[in-house]
Formats: sequence, C-alpha cells, structure tokens
Amino acid sequence: MSGPEMDAEARAEVSEAVREALARHGYERLTTARIAAEYDKSEAGLYYYFDSKDEMIAAFLEETKKPLHEELLGVDDAGPERAHRGGWDTQFPSPGGPSAGVAVGIMELLSHAPYNETLRKPLLELESVILERLVEIVESGVEQGVFRPVDPRATAAFLLAAADGTTGFYIALEMDVDEELQAGLSAYIDSLVAE
Amino acid sequence: MSGPEMDAEARAEVSEAVREALARHGYERLTTARIAAEYDKSEAGLYYYFDSKDEMIAAFLEETKKPLHEELLGVDDAGPERAHRGGWDTQFPSPGGPSAGVAVGIMELLSHAPYNETLRKPLLELESVILERLVEIVESGVEQGVFRPVDPRATAAFLLAAADGTTGFYIALEMDVDEELQAGLSAYIDSLVAE
Repeated sequence: MSGPEMDAEARAEVSEAVREALARHGYERLTTARIAAEYDKSEAGLYYYFDSKDEMIAAFLEETKKPLHEELLGVDDAGPERAHRGGWDTQFPSPGGPSAGVAVGIMELLSHAPYNETLRKPLLELESVILERLVEIVESGVEQGVFRPVDPRATAAFLLAAADGTTGFYIALEMDVDEELQAGLSAYIDSLVAE
Repeated sequence: MSGPEMDAEARAEVSEAVREALARHGYERLTTARIAAEYDKSEAGLYYYFDSKDEMIAAFLEETKKPLHEELLGVDDAGPERAHRGGWDTQFPSPGGPSAGVAVGIMELLSHAPYNETLRKPLLELESVILERLVEIVESGVEQGVFRPVDPRATAAFLLAAADGTTGFYIALEMDVDEELQAGLSAYIDSLVAE
C-alpha cells in the first residue's frame, strides 16, 4: 500500500471488491476500473489509497489471511479428525461454487509470482498461513492420539498441495472427478487416523 | 490449428519453441513474436500454420501429451511401486529445474481455461491423459498385489491434485518445503503399499 493508512472497515470493503472483480474477470483482464465497479464507495477513495491494481490485490491477499485463519481455527473445535477434514473442506471449492472464481484467480496470481514482487510477498504469506495452520491441526491430532504419529509438516505440505492442485483440473477445467477427489481425500485422512 | 497440416518434425519444433517461450515469459506476456524468437525455422513458416498464440499453445499442449505418455509408460517397467513413485517424479518439477518454468506456464494457462476454449480443450485432454495413466499404474499395482485394494480412480485423482498443487507454493513461490513434500508423498505411497 502506497497511500495513507486505511481503517479496518475500508480495507475489508476494498478486499471484497477485489475478490469479486478477480473472481469475475481473472487477473490478466482485471483493471482498477473493474475493481472500482465492484466497490460501493467512490472510486476517488480507492485511488486515494492505491496506485495500481497489484497494490489493491496485495491488500486483498493480506485481508484474506485473517478470515481464513479464523475459519480454520473454528473447525478445530469439533476435534482434530473433524478439524482436519473440515480444514480441507474450506480449502476445497467446488466448480461453479462461491469460491470457484477466486480460487482460479489466486492460481493465476501464483503463476505471476516469479515475475511480480508486489504479488509474490502476500501470496507467500497467505500460503504460509494456510500451511502453518494445517501443521497445527495435524500436531494437535497426533498429540491427542487421533492421528498416528505422522510427520506434521510433511502431512500438511502434502495436503496443501492436494488442496491447491484441485483448482486447475477440477475447478477451472471442470473435469468430472468430484467423487474421486472426495474418496481420495477420505482415504488419505483414513491413513492418518490411529487404529 | 487453422492452416494446412504440418508434418511431425515441424510440429515438434513449434512445440519446443512454445515450451521455451512459455517457460521464459509466462502466458500473459507471450506473443507470437516471442514464440518465433525461439523457433529455429523462419517466422513465415510459423505464421503459415497458425493464426494466433493460442493456436500455437494448443499445438504445444497436444504434442506434450505424447512424450508424457511414453515417459509414464517407461517407468512402469520397473514394477508398479517404483512406477508409481517414478510417475509422480515426472509430474513433480523442482524450483529452478528444467521443467519449473513450463509448469508455472501451464498453471497460468489453466487459470484462463474458464474463458478460453482454444486452451480449455487441449488442457482438458492433457490432464485427462495424465489422470488415466495414473489410474492404469494404480490398477496394475493392485492387480499385482503391490498395492492394497485401493480405489484406482480416487487414488489417481488425489495424486494428480497433489502433483499439480506443488506448482504454486513450491515452484512459483519457492516456499522451502522440498523435504516436507518428498516425505509427505513417500508416506502417502507407503499407505498404498500392501503389507
């Protein structure tokens, strides 16, 4: 962010506008005007705080870390096995569902990370927050004897890969693998559960 | 492809030029001129066969299905367990390695699939070829008693997700998770192996 500090409510509103515009148009076709079109307040307000679409997207990615962290924390209350399955579910959008467009948009942002430092840093933070939270869920599962004594970081990294990897062939291409993916995940979680 | 039929050698040369240019520039910044710059033969030859960069990319994706199919077939000779681990390895590039750029490029293409029919069709075929080959590997492993009687399609879909999903946080963002991913995959394959 280049301009003055925004208050929390304004940041949340900008983040929501970016989310809608990114889901609708993807990154390449995204413009500050298209973000402004999703923004309830005046365009002038938007440009007062941000110089470019990448800065608006960076603010969206930073905002996204927060609810996601709370979401993953929330499902943990049901116990580690449910938490693990639930933690995946929050990462596992369905084709045509409310998170499908933004999941594909974030995949497109990831493909620009090698060339775009403005996007790379908040993307790395976002993926790191998700990974650390999955590590905590596996750790608590192992501590509570719900899971076998698996390696929490290895398990979490593999789960993150599986979650992120559905975005291409399942969400963007709409390959007909819904049941297969659900069964594959379920079998994987079963392999972690203590006998 | 809009123009006349190309011979096999010419198609392979165009495919290699697209692969190099996509790996170097990504999709958004890719132009027919940048593909031509990687092409050994005359630019006129390239434009004789293709009208747009998307048609050139579609030809590259169609060519890519073939060696990939042979690669996955090749590792199968070592037996189904080795084949399964090897089949993953061919899908699992390393950051900075020879396949890293093109993996990120294909992830970017996938993010355009919802809006771009020229790319969507060959991408769907490519992902389908990989999935079917993984299904065959798991099936042969189950038949030969190397793997437990797991669901081949569920296992293959989950593995495909895990393979594709490393491209974002591991390849594009270069998150330091090399050992974790190797250990996570290894533990997953272990969970498939018959006792």
